[in-house]
Amino acid sequence: MLTFSDCQKIIEDQINNLEISQKRPGNLYEPIQYILSLGGKRVRPVATLMACNLFSDNINPAIKSAIAIEVFHNFTLVHDDIMDNASLRRNHLTIHSKWGNNVGILSGDAMQILAYQLICDNDPEFLKPILDLFNTTALEVCEGQQYDMNFALRNNVSLQEYMRMIELKTSVLLAASFKIGAICGEAPASEAQKIYEFGRNLGLAFQIQDDYLDVYADQGVFGKTVGGDIAENKKTFLFIKALELAKGEHANLLKRAFNNEISDITEKIESVRKVYDELNIPQITNDKIAEYSNKAFENLDSVIIDNNRKQPLRGLAQDLTNRKK
Amino acid sequence: MLTFSDCQKIIEDQINNLEISQKRPGNLYEPIQYILSLGGKRVRPVATLMACNLFSDNINPAIKSAIAIEVFHNFTLVHDDIMDNASLRRNHLTIHSKWGNNVGILSGDAMQILAYQLICDNDPEFLKPILDLFNTTALEVCEGQQYDMNFALRNNVSLQEYMRMIELKTSVLLAASFKIGAICGEAPASEAQKIYEFGRNLGLAFQIQDDYLDVYADQGVFGKTVGGDIAENKKTFLFIKALELAKGEHANLLKRAFNNEISDITEKIESVRKVYDELNIPQITNDKIAEYSNKAFENLDSVIIDNNRKQPLRGLAQDLTNRKK
Repeated sequence: MLTFSDCQKIIEDQINNLEISQKRPGNLYEPIQYILSLGGKRVRPVATLMACNLFSDNINPAIKSAIAIEVFHNFTLVHDDIMDNASLRRNHLTIHSKWGNNVGILSGDAMQILAYQLICDNDPEFLKPILDLFNTTALEVCEGQQYDMNFALRNNVSLQEYMRMIELKTSVLLAASFKIGAICGEAPASEAQKIYEFGRNLGLAFQIQDDYLDVYADQGVFGKTVGGDIAENKKTFLFIKALELAKGEHANLLKRAFNNEISDITEKIESVRKVYDELNIPQITNDKIAEYSNKAFENLDSVIIDNNRKQPLRGLAQDLTNRKK
Repeated sequence: MLTFSDCQKIIEDQINNLEISQKRPGNLYEPIQYILSLGGKRVRPVATLMACNLFSDNINPAIKSAIAIEVFHNFTLVHDDIMDNASLRRNHLTIHSKWGNNVGILSGDAMQILAYQLICDNDPEFLKPILDLFNTTALEVCEGQQYDMNFALRNNVSLQEYMRMIELKTSVLLAASFKIGAICGEAPASEAQKIYEFGRNLGLAFQIQDDYLDVYADQGVFGKTVGGDIAENKKTFLFIKALELAKGEHANLLKRAFNNEISDITEKIESVRKVYDELNIPQITNDKIAEYSNKAFENLDSVIIDNNRKQPLRGLAQDLTNRKK
């Protein structure tokens, strides 16, 4: 069975072998090579390979799809970074900061097509179900991004709406990454669907964990600035839950903070965190993460296959939900 | 055999039946419905249906692909309009002018996926060749757009480079529209390829005609402002050819005009047109249009099928290369 790092190595080799930067015109393709070479954990393509490996000793049929998903994911980052006006990604300049918005838009478009080109390299036998899932998922990711942008302009986002948004924006792609791997591993449809649910629940746990770490991570370990979401008034699981529970002074402080009435950023972060603490938000958040993690493990447990084969995926799920950064 | 207007009617009905605007979130999907409902001649999807009809009395297998190509073409318009900073399209506000750049980027992304969703609705038997052609073509269209943007910053674009750019940006999509129709009509591979070449040559003739009309159209008939390309310093077939032939005063005037040294726009257009006339550019341009049109007709003539079936495509080609607007 392949480990996480075995899979990562396969992915890195494959990405290097794409030789995208040699294609012309250079200023369309070089940015694509650039963003793909910035690394990251490669969670989604690793998920595809591992899910294939759960059902089959031969992971080769899943490799092209794994790369396709990584290229698609990076395409969404390129366009999201333009929309969010983000200048840095993985401590490097974003494509539009380095080459301008037009290059960002067009290179992103080309990446989406490259992803389809890779997906279409599948065995014709599996092509239709994989494409159908990929299309549905890709559209859902766009919907999630639109909801996320809409929520930035609203002050009454419910927890239910928030959960649906992160499901679309984050979870479904992870779920599809797993399921496409399972399909390539010739899993029966029922078992491939369990793997999808495993990924969906894991994705939800992962995203809430992301929100949690943004407020409570150890700054020495965390890659980004702790408190960034509070500083930027992002509607996160913690904020929405806190606003739901807050009364009196707590509610006032949250509103003042998110109406930019606390100009000192350190003070803003500290005071919002204090409200979260007093409302027991860390515990509530960790309970929610555990709830989705547990569902994910139940999904994995229910897959009808030799239990020993599940060990790498169990390890992956543990890593993703117990991370510190 | 179906006429152009028969095919247009089928396309309009199908686009109305997509019911995209009912999907949620509304601000992702409404712009898509908006841009698709602005009309246009629907040349590409009509080409798909007519090419299918050349080989088969049943055009139903080509309908989804035809719509996919129209959705893809409109996606490129949405993103091109952002990159070109264009506020109007078919006399209506462009998506990004109406809803902002972010909506333009994201709705465009969703349109590209919708196009794939429609393409994937093909009979599994034809799916792989259609997808392979669609992927290659889509990437070529991006390359063409990048070359077009690059050329705007260069003053030494050769005619050969220009022809390759318009081939990528315009012709290959028309060529693929025809060929995908032929594939859906179960044409033999050799005949489908002839239809591709027919579309490619027709596309080149069409684009040079576009350049010609921008300078020499009758303003009463032409939809846009005659002389717009000269006003905007666009590198067109006419300009590049003129610059290639111009000496002395003619060369000086072209350079002054394109260096924005003639501030009065009417004077700029008139004086550049005078140079074109004196260098015999209208004749040279019309000869080039005729050269590509003739190649296209030869491609069509060579297709092995009952000659009577070719009449609608012949009419389409004549309409496209003899248009006044």
